[in-house]
Amino acid sequence: MNTFGRFFRATIFGESHGEIVGVIIDGCPAGLPLSVEDFTEDMKRRRPEIKGVTDRKEKDVPIIESGVYEGRTDGSPITIIFENRDVASDGYEERKFLPRPGHADFVAFKKYGGFNDPRGGGQFSGRMTVGLVAAGVVAKKIIEPLKPHAEVVEVGGRTDFLRAICEAQVDGDSLGGIVECTIKNVPVGLGEPFFDSVESLISHIVFSIPGIKGIEFGKGFESARMKGSEYNDEFVSEKGETKTNNSGGINGGITNGNDIVFRVAVRPTPSIKKKQWTVDLRTGKRTEIEIKGRHDICFALRVPVILEAACSIVFADLMLMEQRIGRVWNGKR
Amino acid sequence: MNTFGRFFRATIFGESHGEIVGVIIDGCPAGLPLSVEDFTEDMKRRRPEIKGVTDRKEKDVPIIESGVYEGRTDGSPITIIFENRDVASDGYEERKFLPRPGHADFVAFKKYGGFNDPRGGGQFSGRMTVGLVAAGVVAKKIIEPLKPHAEVVEVGGRTDFLRAICEAQVDGDSLGGIVECTIKNVPVGLGEPFFDSVESLISHIVFSIPGIKGIEFGKGFESARMKGSEYNDEFVSEKGETKTNNSGGINGGITNGNDIVFRVAVRPTPSIKKKQWTVDLRTGKRTEIEIKGRHDICFALRVPVILEAACSIVFADLMLMEQRIGRVWNGKR
Amino acid sequence: MNTFGRFFRATIFGESHGEIVGVIIDGCPAGLPLSVEDFTEDMKRRRPEIKGVTDRKEKDVPIIESGVYEGRTDGSPITIIFENRDVASDGYEERKFLPRPGHADFVAFKKYGGFNDPRGGGQFSGRMTVGLVAAGVVAKKIIEPLKPHAEVVEVGGRTDFLRAICEAQVDGDSLGGIVECTIKNVPVGLGEPFFDSVESLISHIVFSIPGIKGIEFGKGFESARMKGSEYNDEFVSEKGETKTNNSGGINGGITNGNDIVFRVAVRPTPSIKKKQWTVDLRTGKRTEIEIKGRHDICFALRVPVILEAACSIVFADLMLMEQRIGRVWNGKR
Amino acid sequence: MNTFGRFFRATIFGESHGEIVGVIIDGCPAGLPLSVEDFTEDMKRRRPEIKGVTDRKEKDVPIIESGVYEGRTDGSPITIIFENRDVASDGYEERKFLPRPGHADFVAFKKYGGFNDPRGGGQFSGRMTVGLVAAGVVAKKIIEPLKPHAEVVEVGGRTDFLRAICEAQVDGDSLGGIVECTIKNVPVGLGEPFFDSVESLISHIVFSIPGIKGIEFGKGFESARMKGSEYNDEFVSEKGETKTNNSGGINGGITNGNDIVFRVAVRPTPSIKKKQWTVDLRTGKRTEIEIKGRHDICFALRVPVILEAACSIVFADLMLMEQRIGRVWNGKR
Repeated sequence: MNTFGRFFRATIFGESHGEIVGVIIDGCPAGLPLSVEDFTEDMKRRRPEIKGVTDRKEKDVPIIESGVYEGRTDGSPITIIFENRDVASDGYEERKFLPRPGHADFVAFKKYGGFNDPRGGGQFSGRMTVGLVAAGVVAKKIIEPLKPHAEVVEVGGRTDFLRAICEAQVDGDSLGGIVECTIKNVPVGLGEPFFDSVESLISHIVFSIPGIKGIEFGKGFESARMKGSEYNDEFVSEKGETKTNNSGGINGGITNGNDIVFRVAVRPTPSIKKKQWTVDLRTGKRTEIEIKGRHDICFALRVPVILEAACSIVFADLMLMEQRIGRVWNGKR
Repeated sequence: MNTFGRFFRATIFGESHGEIVGVIIDGCPAGLPLSVEDFTEDMKRRRPEIKGVTDRKEKDVPIIESGVYEGRTDGSPITIIFENRDVASDGYEERKFLPRPGHADFVAFKKYGGFNDPRGGGQFSGRMTVGLVAAGVVAKKIIEPLKPHAEVVEVGGRTDFLRAICEAQVDGDSLGGIVECTIKNVPVGLGEPFFDSVESLISHIVFSIPGIKGIEFGKGFESARMKGSEYNDEFVSEKGETKTNNSGGINGGITNGNDIVFRVAVRPTPSIKKKQWTVDLRTGKRTEIEIKGRHDICFALRVPVILEAACSIVFADLMLMEQRIGRVWNGKR
Repeated sequence: MNTFGRFFRATIFGESHGEIVGVIIDGCPAGLPLSVEDFTEDMKRRRPEIKGVTDRKEKDVPIIESGVYEGRTDGSPITIIFENRDVASDGYEERKFLPRPGHADFVAFKKYGGFNDPRGGGQFSGRMTVGLVAAGVVAKKIIEPLKPHAEVVEVGGRTDFLRAICEAQVDGDSLGGIVECTIKNVPVGLGEPFFDSVESLISHIVFSIPGIKGIEFGKGFESARMKGSEYNDEFVSEKGETKTNNSGGINGGITNGNDIVFRVAVRPTPSIKKKQWTVDLRTGKRTEIEIKGRHDICFALRVPVILEAACSIVFADLMLMEQRIGRVWNGKR
Repeated sequence: MNTFGRFFRATIFGESHGEIVGVIIDGCPAGLPLSVEDFTEDMKRRRPEIKGVTDRKEKDVPIIESGVYEGRTDGSPITIIFENRDVASDGYEERKFLPRPGHADFVAFKKYGGFNDPRGGGQFSGRMTVGLVAAGVVAKKIIEPLKPHAEVVEVGGRTDFLRAICEAQVDGDSLGGIVECTIKNVPVGLGEPFFDSVESLISHIVFSIPGIKGIEFGKGFESARMKGSEYNDEFVSEKGETKTNNSGGINGGITNGNDIVFRVAVRPTPSIKKKQWTVDLRTGKRTEIEIKGRHDICFALRVPVILEAACSIVFADLMLMEQRIGRVWNGKR
């Protein structure tokens, strides 16, 4: 349930306000150089400095606990741990019975019979994506020269979105956004027919990221409004290059050699400073709550690096399956 | 790769123009009454009579080859087969080297080294969804009283879509559409955190349906343009009922007891009667092709029953996992 | 549950006295020549002509329903079906409440709430191994030049076992036996550490064969009585060849390049002609039963070809995983 | 590959001489009381004090890093870590090219292209079973009142085995042994037909324990020498109780309500103090080596608690699957 992948497998563990969060990566080729420094950039990208993110200040320096010997992966599972240092866990016990609108508080309470860890959202927190980003760092190295690149293209319906964020901050409100991801240099033939289509695998992992409520590939929802004669991508070379890329690089669930393109919709962060109504689970009475603590105004700003990680994990798995990466890393492929 | 589910498992097999297509269902509770008649309605819904679908006339009467004894499931895998009677397979051999734009011809040729069955799209055909619909019939019976209901809400960008279909037929063109699915009476607590979120599982299986290019839950892409104060669903009872249902019945990947709502984008059928350009894979030269045979003008019209089947399979799996369905069927649950 | 393998996946279906039994093979490389004739020899070996086997006369001619196009595998799931022609299904209904000693009647009745198919043991029948042998035929072709070879080495405690079988037949009794399997030309490095050791995978599939009650690799149980100085296999070349092969070709769960050697214990067929006592599940009273119908005197005689199939499936899976077989078959490897 | 289980899933990580070893347990019911003290007894049993085991002195105090909140499991993955304090890692680099007979050195070197961690056997070490025993502690709590109990029944072919161990120690040699495990209070109906038989699942996990070379259920290999009239277990009650238990509590792969009984063969520890011949992988020349460091004389002595853990993990999985344990723990079942 907390494991993704058939070959290149990531297992996520930890809780928002527990001692640690982390990931175990199983199936990584042996011989890949891997050091703490490899993680620096992506970990930093997960903590955008601009307004619009939580003030929570995680150090997020990975501790590689196993799987690396003398600077290279050794074939055994790679365990990467991050300590949760800067947590403020007060007042969560009371909140257990006052579920925050838009949050997983209510479902977690019901599913786990009230035994769930309520602090910071427990295992439902965006904090859990730290492990995903870490697994993505390893995946990116092995899928080279594939280049995933994601960026925020819209926040709160606008493309000039810094101003939108400032306004939301003043209002004590939050914003959603749209993030687009492109992957270049993808070989033809990745993905499996039917249940393990590339869209199936990418959407599966992407919807595990908290707050994602939609995904579209290529022209996506716009394609539903097109005619076949407009939509079909005309072939221009025997290598599969096409004049347009309306299908987003995927036909019949299989990569066609053109760029993979997809977009996701991120709902606004549910934690807002404005007062909200909820119901006390003990009494059934309506109650007003005010959410304290530090929270993102726009979680979408953190999503690009998480999205790159998510699809890199998928492609690492697919490339191992299609034998485009060896079980022992040879430094070039 | 052709199997979906952890507990309630569907394995799809066959090819568009082979002898048979079908499905094996593993993990169905024993004791469930099941007969050929149970399949009649959904099989008929897969073959809409109105213009806009292929003229291919499949009988689609299921043959239950195993797993049912004296009218009830007996705990062993249920094998359901459909014969492919009405197939026209001429001219496919030549086409192998002339990939149709928008189709899986090119990727299938490359992935399988030219050994793929090119007739009717082989295993990439919409025909394969017959098995999915059959598995859905069984799933629907066991998830009762959950009620999945899907319908076409838009074709070619219009809601008065019969006219659009007529026009496309005259033009020898095709159309995409949008299909919405709602599931009522869903208990709280289905779905697993992180990788096996309800959105992850539904999107995984939905993107295996040929031609789906986007999915959104609840407000979906619109939520990216909302503020938290607008988006958050306010609780109105201790059972989890909310004033609005912007999250589409899912928080943190877990069902919250409200209706599940999602929409999918179906791209226009790639087979059109208009001439199109492609490239001959043997010579690399541009060539004009004209697609013959019988094809849907708007595959989206077939999608509702397939979508219901797909999400019923997911919920059968989740309800077995959450122990809301027993291993022996008791007729009520 | 009825599926085995990660990459090269076999799904078994059918029932002893249903219409069909069969197997779906997913993940087989495309381009492998495959015809009905390929199955003849192994299907024949599953039906030894000598006394000691059931008189049941199955034709066992495979029908390849999908996955083969123009004589070669086409990358889609291979469906192979066998019709059950020669079944005698009388008297099974009554027996439902009179479980035969040593059979699965009792557990099937309890597990499936009485809904199980009791005819011929339903899905617990040795008949189900037909599908396994069929999958083995395909596996053997792709693992070439690996050569699995199994033979009966002992029946009823004797090595001159034809005489033992004659005696048992006269007595209306049955016999167990020991079967040994050797696999030659195994490359170094197959198998995964810990949970997917070669011994783990082979024993997993082997214990699915009805009647197997023990397995040992290399010196097996004898090794428990040896000293390290006697047991350790001394290396004699840098390719890993060893002076002795006490470990049966496996160290730390990984193949070491020497022959794989294992033996299994097959318990005597539970169906005997002698009268036996059982308990009526309706009344709890002791009752004498006499088993009619046609049954093997010594099922062990059928086991060699099944054992070869079982380990061939494992090695097909491992060789695909270790990338020693391509996703498109090249005829040599 | 390092994960076992469908529902109750254990993922093992770490290396013999790395910083840590441990386990992640996914799928444990929420609400189960769990503390560090629960692990004390089984961890101690893994380190028998008598002669015959390594002198390595691991503290083996578990650190529960996640999954437990206020003394109870909270539904998220349980991460349990053990620090490796007392490791002596000198001289392993040279040994990389001088594979120890009977060890995994050679196969690890070949499989991972020389990148494996050679210290203490890396991930092939018996040290890895610490995580298995920890997962077993949790499993034992949830499968209550099932009582697995394992004990050494033979060492070096003798039942008075303390003397045998003393002699082997004087000789600088090692010994194998046989361990028997019994599980009481097992309900009828656990296990799945064919591939997930109880024997399949138990043998799968048991063969992941280093040094196991054989397993037999009930009469096991002896059953191959019996007649059906001797072997068949006569029913004596409608609850499935039988006069004898030759089948070891399993028919057709499913538990029949009688005690589960199985035995495993443990080969002698490959590390002995006597000089042995090997081959230098760089030169192909025969070389004499002497193994230093601290090693078990008879690893079989540690096996009972590991075996109990292994089968408890299997039964936790099966009982969740058969819905005999809830997803939220109720303290009684």
